[in-house]
Amino acid sequence: MTAKVITITREFGSGGRTVGRMVADALGYEFYDWNLVDKIATETGFAKQFIEENGEEQGRFSTMLTSSSFGFNLNEQLFEAQSNVIFKLAEKGGCVIVGRCADYLLRNDPNTLCCFIYANEESRKNRVVHEYGETDVPIGKRLKDKDKRRKAHYQYFTSRKWGRSFYYDLCIDTTRIPLNEAASLIVSAAQNFTPSVLRTDED
Amino acid sequence: MTAKVITITREFGSGGRTVGRMVADALGYEFYDWNLVDKIATETGFAKQFIEENGEEQGRFSTMLTSSSFGFNLNEQLFEAQSNVIFKLAEKGGCVIVGRCADYLLRNDPNTLCCFIYANEESRKNRVVHEYGETDVPIGKRLKDKDKRRKAHYQYFTSRKWGRSFYYDLCIDTTRIPLNEAASLIVSAAQNFTPSVLRTDED
Repeated sequence: MTAKVITITREFGSGGRTVGRMVADALGYEFYDWNLVDKIATETGFAKQFIEENGEEQGRFSTMLTSSSFGFNLNEQLFEAQSNVIFKLAEKGGCVIVGRCADYLLRNDPNTLCCFIYANEESRKNRVVHEYGETDVPIGKRLKDKDKRRKAHYQYFTSRKWGRSFYYDLCIDTTRIPLNEAASLIVSAAQNFTPSVLRTDED
Repeated sequence: MTAKVITITREFGSGGRTVGRMVADALGYEFYDWNLVDKIATETGFAKQFIEENGEEQGRFSTMLTSSSFGFNLNEQLFEAQSNVIFKLAEKGGCVIVGRCADYLLRNDPNTLCCFIYANEESRKNRVVHEYGETDVPIGKRLKDKDKRRKAHYQYFTSRKWGRSFYYDLCIDTTRIPLNEAASLIVSAAQNFTPSVLRTDED
Protein backbone atom coordinates (compact mmCIF):
# COMPACT_ATOMS: atom_id res chain seq x y z
CA MET A 1 0.00 0.00 0.00
CA THR A 2 1.00 3.64 -0.43
CA ALA A 3 2.38 5.52 2.57
CA LYS A 4 -0.34 7.86 3.86
CA VAL A 5 2.00 10.64 4.90
CA ILE A 6 5.44 11.65 3.66
CA THR A 7 7.75 13.84 5.72
CA ILE A 8 10.63 15.71 4.12
CA THR A 9 13.40 16.88 6.43
CA ARG A 10 15.91 18.90 4.46
CA GLU A 11 19.10 20.91 4.53
CA PHE A 12 18.79 24.53 3.48
CA GLY A 13 19.47 24.81 -0.26
CA SER A 14 19.15 21.09 -0.98
CA GLY A 15 15.97 21.51 -3.02
CA GLY A 16 14.00 19.40 -0.53
CA ARG A 17 10.98 21.69 -0.70
CA THR A 18 10.84 21.40 -4.49
CA VAL A 19 11.20 17.63 -4.22
CA GLY A 20 8.34 17.56 -1.70
CA ARG A 21 6.07 19.50 -4.03
CA MET A 22 6.84 17.15 -6.93
CA VAL A 23 6.03 14.16 -4.72
CA ALA A 24 2.73 15.71 -3.61
CA ASP A 25 1.79 16.48 -7.24
CA ALA A 26 2.65 12.96 -8.38
CA LEU A 27 0.64 11.29 -5.62
CA GLY A 28 -2.21 13.81 -5.61
CA TYR A 29 -1.41 14.63 -1.96
CA GLU A 30 -1.77 17.92 -0.09
CA PHE A 31 1.51 19.80 0.26
CA TYR A 32 2.38 21.54 3.53
CA ASP A 33 5.29 23.90 3.70
CA TRP A 34 4.96 27.69 4.07
CA ASN A 35 1.19 27.33 3.89
CA LEU A 36 1.42 25.46 7.19
CA VAL A 37 2.30 28.80 8.79
CA ASP A 38 -1.17 30.17 7.95
CA LYS A 39 -2.81 27.00 9.22
CA ILE A 40 -0.85 27.11 12.48
CA ALA A 41 -1.59 30.83 12.89
CA THR A 42 -5.32 30.26 12.41
CA GLU A 43 -5.51 27.25 14.68
CA THR A 44 -3.23 28.42 17.48
CA GLY A 45 -3.43 32.20 17.59
CA PHE A 46 0.34 32.67 17.24
CA ALA A 47 1.38 35.57 14.99
CA LYS A 48 2.51 34.55 11.51
CA GLN A 49 5.84 36.34 11.88
CA PHE A 50 6.60 34.56 15.15
CA ILE A 51 5.83 31.18 13.55
CA GLU A 52 7.96 32.02 10.52
CA GLU A 53 10.89 32.99 12.70
CA ASN A 54 10.65 30.23 15.30
CA GLY A 55 8.59 27.40 13.84
CA GLU A 56 11.46 25.38 12.47
CA GLU A 57 14.65 27.10 13.35
CA GLN A 58 16.08 28.88 16.31
CA GLY A 59 15.00 32.52 15.90
CA ARG A 60 17.74 35.13 15.58
CA PHE A 61 16.76 36.71 18.87
CA SER A 62 15.46 33.57 20.45
CA THR A 63 16.01 32.82 24.10
CA MET A 64 14.91 29.24 23.41
CA LEU A 65 18.00 27.56 24.70
CA THR A 66 18.43 29.56 27.87
CA SER A 67 15.01 30.37 29.22
CA SER A 68 13.47 26.92 29.20
CA SER A 69 14.69 26.24 32.71
CA PHE A 70 12.31 28.96 33.90
CA GLY A 71 9.30 27.16 32.57
CA PHE A 72 7.35 26.38 29.45
CA ASN A 73 8.46 29.21 27.15
CA LEU A 74 6.82 30.63 24.03
CA ASN A 75 8.95 28.54 21.66
CA GLU A 76 7.90 25.39 23.43
CA GLN A 77 4.27 26.47 23.32
CA LEU A 78 4.60 27.09 19.59
CA PHE A 79 6.21 23.68 19.13
CA GLU A 80 3.39 21.97 20.97
CA ALA A 81 0.68 23.83 19.08
CA GLN A 82 2.41 23.19 15.75
CA SER A 83 2.79 19.51 16.66
CA ASN A 84 -0.93 19.20 17.23
CA VAL A 85 -1.64 20.68 13.79
CA ILE A 86 0.75 18.13 12.26
CA PHE A 87 -0.79 15.21 14.18
CA LYS A 88 -4.22 16.21 12.85
CA LEU A 89 -2.93 16.39 9.26
CA ALA A 90 -1.27 12.99 9.62
CA GLU A 91 -4.44 11.45 10.97
CA LYS A 92 -6.32 12.65 7.92
CA GLY A 93 -3.49 11.38 5.68
CA GLY A 94 -2.76 12.06 2.02
CA CYS A 95 -0.14 14.74 2.57
CA VAL A 96 3.52 15.69 2.25
CA ILE A 97 4.89 17.74 5.16
CA VAL A 98 8.17 19.65 4.83
CA GLY A 99 10.26 20.38 7.91
CA ARG A 100 8.91 21.30 11.37
CA CYS A 101 10.27 18.11 12.97
CA ALA A 102 7.41 16.14 11.38
CA ASP A 103 9.79 13.16 10.96
CA TYR A 104 10.26 13.10 14.73
CA LEU A 105 6.61 13.75 15.59
CA LEU A 106 5.43 10.91 13.35
CA ARG A 107 8.28 8.52 14.15
CA ASN A 108 5.95 5.87 15.55
CA ASP A 109 3.35 6.17 12.81
CA PRO A 110 3.41 2.96 10.76
CA ASN A 111 2.05 4.75 7.67
CA THR A 112 4.49 7.67 7.41
CA LEU A 113 7.45 7.50 5.05
CA CYS A 114 10.28 9.66 6.44
CA CYS A 115 12.76 11.21 4.00
CA PHE A 116 15.88 13.33 4.42
CA ILE A 117 17.17 15.52 1.57
CA TYR A 118 20.63 17.08 1.64
CA ALA A 119 23.48 18.13 -0.65
CA ASN A 120 27.06 19.28 -0.50
CA GLU A 121 27.96 22.87 0.25
CA GLU A 122 28.82 23.91 -3.29
CA SER A 123 25.60 22.54 -4.69
CA ARG A 124 23.53 24.23 -1.97
CA LYS A 125 25.28 27.57 -2.45
CA ASN A 126 24.55 27.42 -6.18
CA ARG A 127 20.90 26.68 -5.59
CA VAL A 128 20.44 29.44 -3.02
CA VAL A 129 22.03 32.06 -5.26
CA HIS A 130 20.71 30.99 -8.68
CA GLU A 131 17.32 29.54 -7.82
CA TYR A 132 16.23 31.25 -4.61
CA GLY A 133 17.88 34.48 -5.80
CA GLU A 134 19.32 35.28 -2.37
CA THR A 135 22.26 37.62 -2.77
CA ASP A 136 21.96 40.09 0.10
CA VAL A 137 24.23 38.27 2.58
CA PRO A 138 27.53 36.53 1.59
CA ILE A 139 26.37 33.06 0.66
CA GLY A 140 28.84 31.06 2.79
CA LYS A 141 27.76 32.96 5.90
CA ARG A 142 24.07 32.65 5.00
CA LEU A 143 24.34 28.85 4.63
CA LYS A 144 26.32 28.41 7.85
CA ASP A 145 23.89 30.57 9.82
CA LYS A 146 20.82 28.81 8.46
CA ASP A 147 22.32 25.33 9.06
CA LYS A 148 23.22 26.26 12.60
CA ARG A 149 19.78 27.61 13.51
CA ARG A 150 17.85 24.78 11.85
CA LYS A 151 20.05 22.15 13.52
CA ALA A 152 19.77 23.85 16.94
CA HIS A 153 15.97 23.89 16.68
CA TYR A 154 15.82 20.25 15.58
CA GLN A 155 18.17 19.00 18.27
CA TYR A 156 16.49 21.03 20.99
CA PHE A 157 13.03 19.66 20.29
CA THR A 158 13.91 16.09 19.24
CA SER A 159 17.14 15.29 21.12
CA ARG A 160 18.25 13.69 17.85
CA LYS A 161 21.48 14.08 15.97
CA TRP A 162 21.06 15.91 12.67
CA GLY A 163 21.71 13.85 9.55
CA ARG A 164 21.69 10.38 11.06
CA SER A 165 20.33 8.05 8.40
CA PHE A 166 18.70 5.74 10.98
CA TYR A 167 15.75 8.08 11.49
CA TYR A 168 14.68 7.91 7.85
CA ASP A 169 13.34 5.37 5.40
CA LEU A 170 15.13 7.17 2.62
CA CYS A 171 17.96 9.74 2.51
CA ILE A 172 18.87 11.36 -0.80
CA ASP A 173 21.80 13.60 -1.63
CA THR A 174 20.73 15.94 -4.42
CA THR A 175 24.30 16.82 -5.38
CA ARG A 176 24.43 14.03 -7.98
CA ILE A 177 20.82 12.86 -8.01
CA PRO A 178 18.63 15.44 -9.81
CA LEU A 179 15.56 16.78 -7.97
CA ASN A 180 13.02 15.13 -10.30
CA GLU A 181 14.80 11.80 -9.85
CA ALA A 182 14.81 12.28 -6.07
CA ALA A 183 11.04 12.87 -6.26
CA SER A 184 10.55 9.72 -8.38
CA LEU A 185 12.50 7.65 -5.87
CA ILE A 186 10.32 8.89 -3.01
CA VAL A 187 7.11 8.26 -4.96
CA SER A 188 8.23 4.74 -5.81
CA ALA A 189 9.25 4.02 -2.21
CA ALA A 190 5.91 5.41 -0.97
CA GLN A 191 4.01 3.15 -3.37
CA ASN A 192 5.98 0.05 -2.37
CA PHE A 193 5.91 0.67 1.33
CA THR A 194 5.13 -1.97 3.96
CA PRO A 195 3.51 -0.29 6.98
CA SER A 196 5.21 -0.99 10.33
CA VAL A 197 6.97 1.04 12.98
CA LEU A 198 10.34 2.21 11.66
CA ARG A 199 12.28 1.73 14.84
CA THR A 200 11.75 1.17 18.48
CA ASP A 201 15.50 1.22 19.12
CA GLU A 202 16.66 4.83 19.19
CA ASP A 203 20.23 5.33 18.07
CA MET B 1 24.82 8.71 -17.68
CA THR B 2 24.87 5.59 -15.51
CA ALA B 3 27.16 5.51 -12.48
CA LYS B 4 30.16 3.31 -13.30
CA VAL B 5 30.57 1.87 -9.82
CA ILE B 6 28.08 1.33 -7.00
CA THR B 7 29.20 0.83 -3.42
CA ILE B 8 26.91 -0.75 -0.84
CA THR B 9 27.77 -0.14 2.80
CA ARG B 10 25.40 -2.10 5.00
CA GLU B 11 24.37 -3.05 8.49
CA PHE B 12 24.55 -6.73 9.33
CA GLY B 13 21.17 -8.34 8.63
CA SER B 14 19.80 -5.45 6.57
CA GLY B 15 19.79 -7.43 3.33
CA GLY B 16 22.30 -5.05 1.76
CA ARG B 17 24.24 -7.89 0.11
CA THR B 18 21.06 -9.22 -1.53
CA VAL B 19 20.17 -5.71 -2.69
CA GLY B 20 23.67 -5.34 -4.16
CA ARG B 21 23.32 -8.56 -6.11
CA MET B 22 19.94 -7.48 -7.52
CA VAL B 23 21.43 -4.15 -8.60
CA ALA B 24 24.38 -5.89 -10.30
CA ASP B 25 22.01 -8.27 -12.11
CA ALA B 26 19.75 -5.45 -13.26
CA LEU B 27 22.64 -3.35 -14.61
CA GLY B 28 24.68 -6.28 -15.92
CA TYR B 29 27.53 -5.28 -13.57
CA GLU B 30 30.09 -7.49 -11.83
CA PHE B 31 29.23 -8.17 -8.20
CA TYR B 32 31.96 -8.15 -5.54
CA ASP B 33 31.25 -9.42 -2.08
CA TRP B 34 32.69 -12.66 -0.66
CA ASN B 35 34.30 -13.37 -4.02
CA LEU B 36 36.47 -10.32 -3.38
CA VAL B 37 38.20 -12.38 -0.69
CA ASP B 38 39.56 -14.79 -3.32
CA LYS B 39 40.64 -11.90 -5.51
CA ILE B 40 42.41 -10.17 -2.64
CA ALA B 41 44.05 -13.45 -1.56
CA THR B 42 45.36 -14.09 -5.07
CA GLU B 43 46.58 -10.55 -5.63
CA THR B 44 48.09 -9.87 -2.21
CA GLY B 45 49.24 -13.18 -0.76
CA PHE B 46 47.18 -12.80 2.42
CA ALA B 47 45.53 -16.02 3.64
CA LYS B 48 41.82 -16.26 2.86
CA GLN B 49 40.92 -16.86 6.50
CA PHE B 50 42.81 -13.76 7.62
CA ILE B 51 41.02 -11.63 5.01
CA GLU B 52 37.65 -13.09 6.00
CA GLU B 53 38.25 -12.30 9.64
CA ASN B 54 39.85 -8.88 9.28
CA GLY B 55 38.94 -7.52 5.85
CA GLU B 56 35.88 -5.59 6.90
CA GLU B 57 35.47 -5.95 10.60
CA GLN B 58 37.67 -5.93 13.62
CA GLY B 59 38.78 -9.57 14.09
CA ARG B 60 37.80 -11.30 17.31
CA PHE B 61 41.43 -11.58 18.35
CA SER B 62 42.59 -8.48 16.56
CA THR B 63 45.17 -6.20 18.08
CA MET B 64 44.26 -3.62 15.45
CA LEU B 65 43.41 -0.83 17.82
CA THR B 66 46.35 -1.19 20.17
CA SER B 67 49.34 -2.19 18.11
CA SER B 68 49.22 0.43 15.42
CA SER B 69 51.38 2.80 17.43
CA PHE B 70 54.23 0.31 17.03
CA GLY B 71 54.15 0.60 13.27
CA PHE B 72 52.30 -0.53 10.20
CA ASN B 73 50.56 -3.67 11.45
CA LEU B 74 49.12 -6.61 9.51
CA ASN B 75 45.58 -5.23 9.55
CA GLU B 76 46.78 -2.01 8.02
CA GLN B 77 48.75 -3.89 5.40
CA LEU B 78 45.64 -5.89 4.55
CA PHE B 79 43.60 -2.69 4.31
CA GLU B 80 46.11 -1.12 1.95
CA ALA B 81 46.34 -4.21 -0.25
CA GLN B 82 42.54 -4.58 -0.31
CA SER B 83 42.19 -0.89 -1.17
CA ASN B 84 44.43 -1.30 -4.18
CA VAL B 85 42.30 -4.18 -5.43
CA ILE B 86 39.19 -1.98 -5.06
CA PHE B 87 40.82 0.98 -6.84
CA LYS B 88 41.65 -1.29 -9.78
CA LEU B 89 38.08 -2.61 -9.96
CA ALA B 90 36.70 0.94 -9.84
CA GLU B 91 39.00 2.07 -12.61
CA LYS B 92 37.69 -0.71 -14.82
CA GLY B 93 34.10 0.19 -13.81
CA GLY B 94 30.86 -1.74 -14.28
CA CYS B 95 30.71 -3.22 -10.79
CA VAL B 96 28.87 -3.26 -7.47
CA ILE B 97 31.12 -3.51 -4.41
CA VAL B 98 29.71 -4.52 -1.03
CA GLY B 99 31.43 -3.38 2.17
CA ARG B 100 35.20 -3.10 2.70
CA CYS B 101 35.07 0.70 3.11
CA ALA B 102 34.66 1.05 -0.66
CA ASP B 103 32.41 4.09 -0.05
CA TYR B 104 35.29 5.81 1.72
CA LEU B 105 37.97 4.69 -0.74
CA LEU B 106 35.98 5.95 -3.72
CA ARG B 107 34.64 9.10 -2.02
CA ASN B 108 36.30 11.41 -4.54
CA ASP B 109 35.36 9.37 -7.59
CA PRO B 110 32.83 11.37 -9.62
CA ASN B 111 31.38 8.20 -11.16
CA THR B 112 30.69 6.13 -8.03
CA LEU B 113 27.20 6.05 -6.52
CA CYS B 114 27.52 5.42 -2.76
CA CYS B 115 24.64 3.68 -0.96
CA PHE B 116 23.98 2.77 2.66
CA ILE B 117 21.52 -0.01 3.59
CA TYR B 118 20.25 -0.49 7.15
CA ALA B 119 17.20 -1.63 9.07
CA ASN B 120 15.84 -1.68 12.59
CA GLU B 121 16.93 -4.30 15.09
CA GLU B 122 13.81 -6.44 14.90
CA SER B 123 13.89 -6.63 11.14
CA ARG B 124 17.59 -7.51 11.12
CA LYS B 125 17.16 -10.20 13.78
CA ASN B 126 14.38 -11.78 11.73
CA ARG B 127 16.48 -11.80 8.61
CA VAL B 128 19.54 -13.27 10.32
CA VAL B 129 17.54 -16.11 11.89
CA HIS B 130 15.08 -16.90 9.07
CA GLU B 131 17.10 -16.12 5.98
CA TYR B 132 20.74 -16.56 6.97
CA GLY B 133 19.73 -19.47 9.23
CA GLU B 134 22.07 -18.42 12.04
CA THR B 135 20.84 -19.89 15.29
CA ASP B 136 24.02 -20.97 17.12
CA VAL B 137 24.51 -17.79 19.19
CA PRO B 138 21.63 -15.83 20.84
CA ILE B 139 20.57 -13.46 18.11
CA GLY B 140 20.63 -10.23 20.13
CA LYS B 141 24.23 -10.88 21.16
CA ARG B 142 25.23 -11.89 17.62
CA LEU B 143 23.85 -8.67 16.17
CA LYS B 144 25.43 -6.46 18.82
CA ASP B 145 28.81 -8.15 18.41
CA LYS B 146 28.77 -7.92 14.62
CA ASP B 147 27.65 -4.26 14.66
CA LYS B 148 30.39 -3.40 17.11
CA ARG B 149 33.18 -5.05 15.15
CA ARG B 150 32.05 -3.73 11.76
CA LYS B 151 31.70 -0.20 13.14
CA ALA B 152 35.12 -0.35 14.87
CA HIS B 153 36.78 -1.43 11.64
CA TYR B 154 35.03 1.27 9.59
CA GLN B 155 35.80 4.04 12.02
CA TYR B 156 39.41 2.98 12.48
CA PHE B 157 40.20 3.04 8.77
CA THR B 158 38.01 5.93 7.65
CA SER B 159 37.75 8.22 10.73
CA ARG B 160 34.09 8.56 9.76
CA LYS B 161 31.03 8.25 11.92
CA TRP B 162 28.95 5.18 11.10
CA GLY B 163 25.51 5.87 9.65
CA ARG B 164 25.91 9.53 8.76
CA SER B 165 23.79 10.14 5.68
CA PHE B 166 26.15 12.81 4.33
CA TYR B 167 28.63 10.24 3.02
CA TYR B 168 26.08 8.63 0.71
CA ASP B 169 24.06 9.52 -2.36
CA LEU B 170 21.30 7.25 -1.16
CA CYS B 171 20.47 5.65 2.21
CA ILE B 172 17.66 3.10 2.40
CA ASP B 173 16.08 1.53 5.46
CA THR B 174 14.86 -1.94 4.49
CA THR B 175 12.51 -2.21 7.47
CA ARG B 176 9.60 -0.81 5.47
CA ILE B 177 11.07 -0.68 1.97
CA PRO B 178 11.29 -4.23 0.54
CA LEU B 179 14.68 -5.42 -0.78
CA ASN B 180 13.58 -5.56 -4.44
CA GLU B 181 12.24 -2.01 -4.16
CA ALA B 182 15.52 -0.88 -2.55
CA ALA B 183 17.36 -2.41 -5.51
CA SER B 184 15.05 -0.65 -8.02
CA LEU B 185 15.66 2.68 -6.31
CA ILE B 186 19.43 2.24 -6.55
CA VAL B 187 19.24 1.18 -10.21
CA SER B 188 17.09 4.20 -11.04
CA ALA B 189 19.41 6.57 -9.14
CA ALA B 190 22.44 5.03 -10.89
CA GLN B 191 20.82 5.55 -14.29
CA ASN B 192 19.91 9.18 -13.56
CA PHE B 193 23.18 10.12 -11.97
CA THR B 194 25.09 13.35 -12.72
CA PRO B 195 28.82 12.69 -12.26
CA SER B 196 30.61 15.09 -9.90
CA VAL B 197 32.46 14.85 -6.61
CA LEU B 198 29.98 14.11 -3.81
CA ARG B 199 31.56 16.33 -1.21
CA THR B 200 34.71 18.19 -0.51
CA ASP B 201 33.38 19.34 2.83
CA GLU B 202 33.73 16.50 5.31
CA ASP B 203 31.17 16.52 8.08
